[in-house]
Amino acid sequence: MSKERLIYLPLGGAGEIGMNAYVYGWGAPGKERMIIVDLGVTFPDMESSPGVDLIFADVEWLEERADRIEGVFITHAHEDHVGAVGHLWSRLRAPVFARKFTAHHATRKLEEAGQDPANVTVASPWPETTKAGPFTVGFVPISHSIPESSGVVIDTPAGRIVHTGDFKIDPTPLVGEPFDPDLWRSIGESGVKALVCDSTNVFSPHSGRSEASLADPITSLIQDAPGMVVATTFASNVARVKTLAEAAEAAGRSVCLMGRAMRRMIEASVATGVLTDFPKVVSPEDALDLPRTNLMLIVTGSQGERRAASAALSRGKYLGHEMKEGDLFLFSSKTIPGNEKGVIRVMNLLSEMGVDVVDDSSGDYHVSGHANRPDLAEMHKLINPQMLIPMHGEHRHLRAHVALGEESGIPGVVAPNGSMVDLTGDRPDVVEYVEAGRTYLDGEVQIGALDGVVRNRIRMALNGHVIVTAIIEDDEALGEPWVEIMGLPETGKSKAPLVDVMEEDLSQFLGRAKRSTLADDDDLEKELKRIARQTAQDEIGKKPEVTVVISRLTP
Amino acid sequence: MSKERLIYLPLGGAGEIGMNAYVYGWGAPGKERMIIVDLGVTFPDMESSPGVDLIFADVEWLEERADRIEGVFITHAHEDHVGAVGHLWSRLRAPVFARKFTAHHATRKLEEAGQDPANVTVASPWPETTKAGPFTVGFVPISHSIPESSGVVIDTPAGRIVHTGDFKIDPTPLVGEPFDPDLWRSIGESGVKALVCDSTNVFSPHSGRSEASLADPITSLIQDAPGMVVATTFASNVARVKTLAEAAEAAGRSVCLMGRAMRRMIEASVATGVLTDFPKVVSPEDALDLPRTNLMLIVTGSQGERRAASAALSRGKYLGHEMKEGDLFLFSSKTIPGNEKGVIRVMNLLSEMGVDVVDDSSGDYHVSGHANRPDLAEMHKLINPQMLIPMHGEHRHLRAHVALGEESGIPGVVAPNGSMVDLTGDRPDVVEYVEAGRTYLDGEVQIGALDGVVRNRIRMALNGHVIVTAIIEDDEALGEPWVEIMGLPETGKSKAPLVDVMEEDLSQFLGRAKRSTLADDDDLEKELKRIARQTAQDEIGKKPEVTVVISRLTP
Repeated sequence: MSKERLIYLPLGGAGEIGMNAYVYGWGAPGKERMIIVDLGVTFPDMESSPGVDLIFADVEWLEERADRIEGVFITHAHEDHVGAVGHLWSRLRAPVFARKFTAHHATRKLEEAGQDPANVTVASPWPETTKAGPFTVGFVPISHSIPESSGVVIDTPAGRIVHTGDFKIDPTPLVGEPFDPDLWRSIGESGVKALVCDSTNVFSPHSGRSEASLADPITSLIQDAPGMVVATTFASNVARVKTLAEAAEAAGRSVCLMGRAMRRMIEASVATGVLTDFPKVVSPEDALDLPRTNLMLIVTGSQGERRAASAALSRGKYLGHEMKEGDLFLFSSKTIPGNEKGVIRVMNLLSEMGVDVVDDSSGDYHVSGHANRPDLAEMHKLINPQMLIPMHGEHRHLRAHVALGEESGIPGVVAPNGSMVDLTGDRPDVVEYVEAGRTYLDGEVQIGALDGVVRNRIRMALNGHVIVTAIIEDDEALGEPWVEIMGLPETGKSKAPLVDVMEEDLSQFLGRAKRSTLADDDDLEKELKRIARQTAQDEIGKKPEVTVVISRLTP
Repeated sequence: MSKERLIYLPLGGAGEIGMNAYVYGWGAPGKERMIIVDLGVTFPDMESSPGVDLIFADVEWLEERADRIEGVFITHAHEDHVGAVGHLWSRLRAPVFARKFTAHHATRKLEEAGQDPANVTVASPWPETTKAGPFTVGFVPISHSIPESSGVVIDTPAGRIVHTGDFKIDPTPLVGEPFDPDLWRSIGESGVKALVCDSTNVFSPHSGRSEASLADPITSLIQDAPGMVVATTFASNVARVKTLAEAAEAAGRSVCLMGRAMRRMIEASVATGVLTDFPKVVSPEDALDLPRTNLMLIVTGSQGERRAASAALSRGKYLGHEMKEGDLFLFSSKTIPGNEKGVIRVMNLLSEMGVDVVDDSSGDYHVSGHANRPDLAEMHKLINPQMLIPMHGEHRHLRAHVALGEESGIPGVVAPNGSMVDLTGDRPDVVEYVEAGRTYLDGEVQIGALDGVVRNRIRMALNGHVIVTAIIEDDEALGEPWVEIMGLPETGKSKAPLVDVMEEDLSQFLGRAKRSTLADDDDLEKELKRIARQTAQDEIGKKPEVTVVISRLTP
């Protein structure tokens, strides 16, 4: 039997920001007992995944080895870490562990997927640990932009792994535990085999700022506002929502929460005890009775999402509330790449109403939840690991993070999704590439990103769609072929309707086609498609997708 | 007869960045003689305009009044100012005026559209002017990021208008004329009715930096590079291309231009005399014989465009050249909102090759071509106009720019596309709203943005497409209905093929449908559509687009 080994295998999150899913295994090759850290989602976009509802890691490799999975450990309750745990549970069927607040969210994910919420176990924080096969796993509090974020410390027969999860070094995060350098140093003291570390902000050159630094600027911004104030941030950024609410209170304004995610998140925070002294909130209905100078709305939609409260307010009345000239709208958030156009759309609609829009461009109203470059170096130093495996980042982030580690003499490796890394020796060693991809949740069906379904949608969107129907009886065309178009101009060069020109060309072809062509479905389809595309090219200058339907009547 | 008036009417560029098209008119209401300043394009995206090739202003209003158009004046050769002049010429049929370099581009646009290039007249710069009906128009050199950029000074019976075009205040732009404050002050001295002013950078709080400030940092970056260097910027930014080429030369590297737009632009610049001392370039073939440490490629694709040279290099070999570990790739450019994902994709592919990517995040390798907030205030002061009309900006830019003018006591108005503003009196007065929209060039056909063609493409992309075919003879279904799907999962809840389940449900319906339903095309189509959508909803959890084709056989 081969020697036992310790492996690391990212299936999501390494080579992208989002969709985190990391596997650790210990045992003889091919017989490793495994744990999963995080099972998150990423979000579709019109360019690459139109019509898709959610995206998560392709777990086929894991599913085939489900009997070897000891547990799923969730570091925190952000969607890109916990969002897929419900959708994928039936395929992995392993117990889920998380701290209380995170477990609250994981439980709901399982319930929504029709799974037994009892599969989620609430874990106490470090120094308590959970045994999972050959692993002993502890949740160590770490500061980030959501309550109860944790790094996981994984003790294995080959040594200790520190998997940071998402984190920043914040001594005053306002909600949740401050970053405790002594605690992390002590975790590193007994020797750490591998630091598996968040890479999101490796390109941010200056030390990160604390959540607490925002209270003063936000408070004075709100105090100076002459009309109604509306602010948006990620609902999960409970500390920020609290900062905004307290600033409102200090300015003599009542707070009203809008958007389902916002209310749910604050309720969950109160229910699980992570939020204890949140200002009193008024309902949207009651808020209608307050003078607008005494009101602040905190709303969902910091990324310009069309269905969120911010977008609804930018379009007009929402729950009876309407913004107007002299009001203030604050984006206490950063725009995630790809969402710029949506955010700008909301900003311009608000501008049309005469609303003053303030965003994070001054740096006064938002701080990131991730460790910047000097903070990453600080973390390397505190943990002092034998090797560094950057995770949660695009390829360029992982690469720059390896280089940063090397500056301190720590060997590292760029291990994108699908790279199986053997951590047993002195240095990380990529031993295998596993098929790693994306699974799309489309309506209620899980489809592979490369199945061709979405590719066909993109083709129809780019090229339009022509449907050609022909009825064949006794190997002769019965009547004229019929053409329908969708997503194409009605007329082109000849000024006659495009469908008429196509039907004419197709009809001519059928009239002179050989009997053998008419008798062969494949040949006939190919020819009809070719003619429809050529006619479109001549008439409108583009070649559409064509579906041919041949009906054969048996006389 | 009504009193004569001076009007301003933006049809593009006011309420967006791009697609500039501004109309000025003088005369009795409804009888104004008109000129157009700029006829630009904007670019489609997958989210709102999939499959579209180019977007320009809807000029229907102008087309109906084409006999009143005295001329089209193009301020500079950027696509968002000159790009539509060929596509729209046959609808407007007015003479086109521009300075030599810009005219070179306008001429090519007309030729490509099959129009007579003799419709373009080369205009000499200020103090020379062109008479156009009641207007006297002069092209005044102004610094921007392309050679021979000009503001236009329009003398009218109601006073002088200064239309800045795109500009920055740059005393050392390297290519093209420096900004000349004395010249602009002299233009303002005799009194200016309206300053119609670029608004792009109104949210940039600090004074802009000169193009010349980039030479040193770029030169030292290239000098320190250990391998091949590749740099990208907008091809039209001839000064930047020159800076990059001179930095290469200073570092002992030969320069090779890649990408059609890059070569064309430099050739046009040399041919029209705006570029006189560009370093010698080598062809891509000859460059293959040079040591990579003695080579610098300057390539197209600063926005991550899939077909440009930068993207081609990121995917592998391009014209025999290939990047590798230790090479440097410089984005000497800013990413336009909406292009982030494309640029990031290129960066990550380069990272996978081991290439070091440098972008403008340090601020050392790119400067904007537009006037920042303090520079706009400076321009207001130099011109000292009676009123300010901000143009070229989203709504929020226009609004902030009006507020900036008001700080100096200059009355202004936010006039988005379609607002007809009467400039005759002491203050700008919006007198009418004209239908202003977008025209899509789709293949070779111009379609209205709201025609529904593109909406249908988006629907197919989001929802997939089902085609139902039924043959009816003598008001009875002949055989089974036939279903084809495109862009939908093959199976859903029941695990049977989706098309089979749909055909079964549709067949059952046809079997029990009333004769009157079968006899009525509209009723039958509606019912078949409803059933197909409902079956899809049950099986896969989404409702597709459905096209129903009913063939009636006459017995």
